[in-house]
Amino acid sequence: MILKARKIPIKVGHKYIVVFNEKVAHMLDVQPSDRVSVRNGSRQITCIVEITESHDVKDTEIGLHVETWDELKADRGDKMFVTLAEKPESNKYIREKLDGKELSKEKIDTIVRDIVHDDLSDVEMTYFVSACYMKGLNNEETANLTKSIVEHGNRIIPKSKIIADKHCIGGVPGNRTTMVVIPIIAAAGITIPKTSSRAITSPSGTADTMEVMCNVTNDAKKLQKILEKVGAFITWGGGVDLAAADDRLIRVRHPMSLDPKGMLLASIMAKKYAVGSTHVLIDIPYGPQVKTSTLTQALELKKDFERLGKMLGMNVKVIATRGDAPIGRGIGPVLEAIDVMSVLENKPDAPKDLREKAIFMAGELLELCGKSKKGTGETLAEKILSSGSALKKMNEIIDAQGRKKMPKVGKLTHAVLAEKSGKITGVDNKLISHVARVAGAPKNPGAGVLITKNLNDMVKKGDILYTIYAENKQRLSNAIAESKAKVYTIS
Amino acid sequence: MILKARKIPIKVGHKYIVVFNEKVAHMLDVQPSDRVSVRNGSRQITCIVEITESHDVKDTEIGLHVETWDELKADRGDKMFVTLAEKPESNKYIREKLDGKELSKEKIDTIVRDIVHDDLSDVEMTYFVSACYMKGLNNEETANLTKSIVEHGNRIIPKSKIIADKHCIGGVPGNRTTMVVIPIIAAAGITIPKTSSRAITSPSGTADTMEVMCNVTNDAKKLQKILEKVGAFITWGGGVDLAAADDRLIRVRHPMSLDPKGMLLASIMAKKYAVGSTHVLIDIPYGPQVKTSTLTQALELKKDFERLGKMLGMNVKVIATRGDAPIGRGIGPVLEAIDVMSVLENKPDAPKDLREKAIFMAGELLELCGKSKKGTGETLAEKILSSGSALKKMNEIIDAQGRKKMPKVGKLTHAVLAEKSGKITGVDNKLISHVARVAGAPKNPGAGVLITKNLNDMVKKGDILYTIYAENKQRLSNAIAESKAKVYTIS
Repeated sequence: MILKARKIPIKVGHKYIVVFNEKVAHMLDVQPSDRVSVRNGSRQITCIVEITESHDVKDTEIGLHVETWDELKADRGDKMFVTLAEKPESNKYIREKLDGKELSKEKIDTIVRDIVHDDLSDVEMTYFVSACYMKGLNNEETANLTKSIVEHGNRIIPKSKIIADKHCIGGVPGNRTTMVVIPIIAAAGITIPKTSSRAITSPSGTADTMEVMCNVTNDAKKLQKILEKVGAFITWGGGVDLAAADDRLIRVRHPMSLDPKGMLLASIMAKKYAVGSTHVLIDIPYGPQVKTSTLTQALELKKDFERLGKMLGMNVKVIATRGDAPIGRGIGPVLEAIDVMSVLENKPDAPKDLREKAIFMAGELLELCGKSKKGTGETLAEKILSSGSALKKMNEIIDAQGRKKMPKVGKLTHAVLAEKSGKITGVDNKLISHVARVAGAPKNPGAGVLITKNLNDMVKKGDILYTIYAENKQRLSNAIAESKAKVYTIS
Repeated sequence: MILKARKIPIKVGHKYIVVFNEKVAHMLDVQPSDRVSVRNGSRQITCIVEITESHDVKDTEIGLHVETWDELKADRGDKMFVTLAEKPESNKYIREKLDGKELSKEKIDTIVRDIVHDDLSDVEMTYFVSACYMKGLNNEETANLTKSIVEHGNRIIPKSKIIADKHCIGGVPGNRTTMVVIPIIAAAGITIPKTSSRAITSPSGTADTMEVMCNVTNDAKKLQKILEKVGAFITWGGGVDLAAADDRLIRVRHPMSLDPKGMLLASIMAKKYAVGSTHVLIDIPYGPQVKTSTLTQALELKKDFERLGKMLGMNVKVIATRGDAPIGRGIGPVLEAIDVMSVLENKPDAPKDLREKAIFMAGELLELCGKSKKGTGETLAEKILSSGSALKKMNEIIDAQGRKKMPKVGKLTHAVLAEKSGKITGVDNKLISHVARVAGAPKNPGAGVLITKNLNDMVKKGDILYTIYAENKQRLSNAIAESKAKVYTIS
């Protein structure tokens, strides 16, 4: 069928979508989400069909979204040759997974390839996520998914023999341990390329906190250079496209907050595999208000990570840590960056818990990499930190990535006071994160919460528990309203 | 946040979608498929977010697709007040189903309501379909889904006490039994409102075949009038919107051809329940090449239908029939209509198998409705058919719906001959349907296949097996190419 090109002046994110009116769809015998092959001169692509009830796209026309229009180098009125196209091969493998079948390496690779090439619609990807969630992925499938994600993404290949990584599965407010560990490890002479995520539902991700001090959107080429020069970076993973398939899957996992275990493991490990990691330390905080609520769950996840690491040829060590209370004082990008820098600068008032956790983790990683004998890692880590070598390394990283002037903390503040005297027996991680987020974090980098009292501290009635920082009045008053909820339990 | 309205001149089918550029999305802290509340003056609606990478929608703008634009009565540059909106309530019930929980009547009803109000995105509906497919729907859930679909759709309420229906779950080429049964039952004085589907992957649906003789797109009001006057209609179900939720679910089931059993049952039974059916006869053809491949499967489905009928207060009888070979001679809209009319007109050369199956089915339905005593239904059905009463009734139905001049059969033909002599021991239903479809059916109403020889017939080498009809050369030559495959097995 020959149809005239009509531009629809909007990008859709998925590459190739075409729009027909109902009459044309009927004549072509296509349903929404079917595929057609569209040719303009010598350019030909496969597109997913949308059907409009209106007559904005006429009986003689094919509507092309910006990406499709550009790819076909179309001009208004150009003649487009439209024919039916087959479903992508992966469609039938997704169906097999829905029916509970195990998928071979080749089938998983085909699915990942089609995802990266934008050949699968959101509905089809959703079926894949659902099937992985309800039928599960076994060890082989998880390892193959991880490899395929890496093979169909960008890679960074450091030249060193030992390449370390440190990862925390998250959920603990203010926990910016990574930003202290990385410079310690790098200062010890170990290559450590670190990609991090931005906050989705939390008040700040490592990438958000790092971003107040330097640029975190760097491409693979630039990161390769930084690594050769400094031996480390701390960058936003989304900017490198190490796991393009994973990013697309996350888009359809988001509406249901669905974390199929195999996908979660693959998602994390792909980013280590893509930068050639050989020695990986993973921190799994557990507690009633983090993702992993019990030690049993944490230990199960530990096994999964270590098994997957083995299958991928990586040396993975997992540590389960308590995640009952915030770590450090700041919650929010700038407030957290101040914590991190005060630890690196060995300031006397630097948050002790953050310093201790960082030294412990760095020590474990030094031992894992064979840099310290068993039992001596912490001593070495402490020495590197106290000597100022870690601070020096962090400044090298920040300069290499492109230093920025750190924004100020929010100029509007409100102190939340203890309503009675006693011992703090509980801090609600989710609530305090919520308050920081309502105050504006991470969008307003200076917004958030500064903790004065933490779990197990003794307080007197009227003592400051925490202070809300905001960049504007509305945000502050919203956060104050949210702070009425019982964030602290005092007994 | 206040943004200026910008129209995106395309309808999307789902009601309310808004488009932000990445910067605005970041400031609003929204992800694709999140929801925002948009207010223009006194008009306020909840919309699903799309994010564009381009700058076609500017930092100060909100892009509104036609439906959203119209609903908000927007004018270019109007100020829109945008705030975050909650996910619809049903989102968490879908999540519960993904986790294998049973859904209460209220939860199912909320999901169906949100589907009909276009409050769920395709991705969310896909999760619901996946969960129903992999976790199944129990009897209660299936009955509640059926009722909810009906409660959130249009209804037709006939005045009669007994309301019959006849349904075939399909898969047998040329099987237009329904179009003979309906007029027989109606001629016997029983009210029988029949909604049918169009072909999706077959060469013709009952609605397509009926459409060559009369209008089949009628709204509920008009159908109610026809029913009062004639006692029957045969119309396209999609035109009445009896099961709006079902139509939307089918859209996301289509890409994977997914038929979760509970949804399939609910989909069929909702359309009976919506027209007040009290006595329903269901034909389940089984055979290696129809949806239900074995008698065991057919009997299991029979139990499901009868149980669901009971729960809905309907008298349901299911008959499993052999579906090994086409029924009638024509395959394709006009060719099938000719078969149907020749049976109703009692022509000596009318296809015997179609006549016999129709009399058998009509007899069963007459008995089910209590019009005939057990064992005498077929005699009454045969009498009504032979007397010309059924033909008279069919003409009344056609006139009431709006008679059209029947198109001619395709003027281009090609006869496919037996390559050897012997007995026909197999007819490939799927292949012969495929040939008819490639020839142009149902889009080209006169196209299709006319069968001369059928299962168990004796043939001599060179005898005509079937004739392909097409309306244009290209279609004919494509169909001839497909007819090279082994449609008939001669032993």
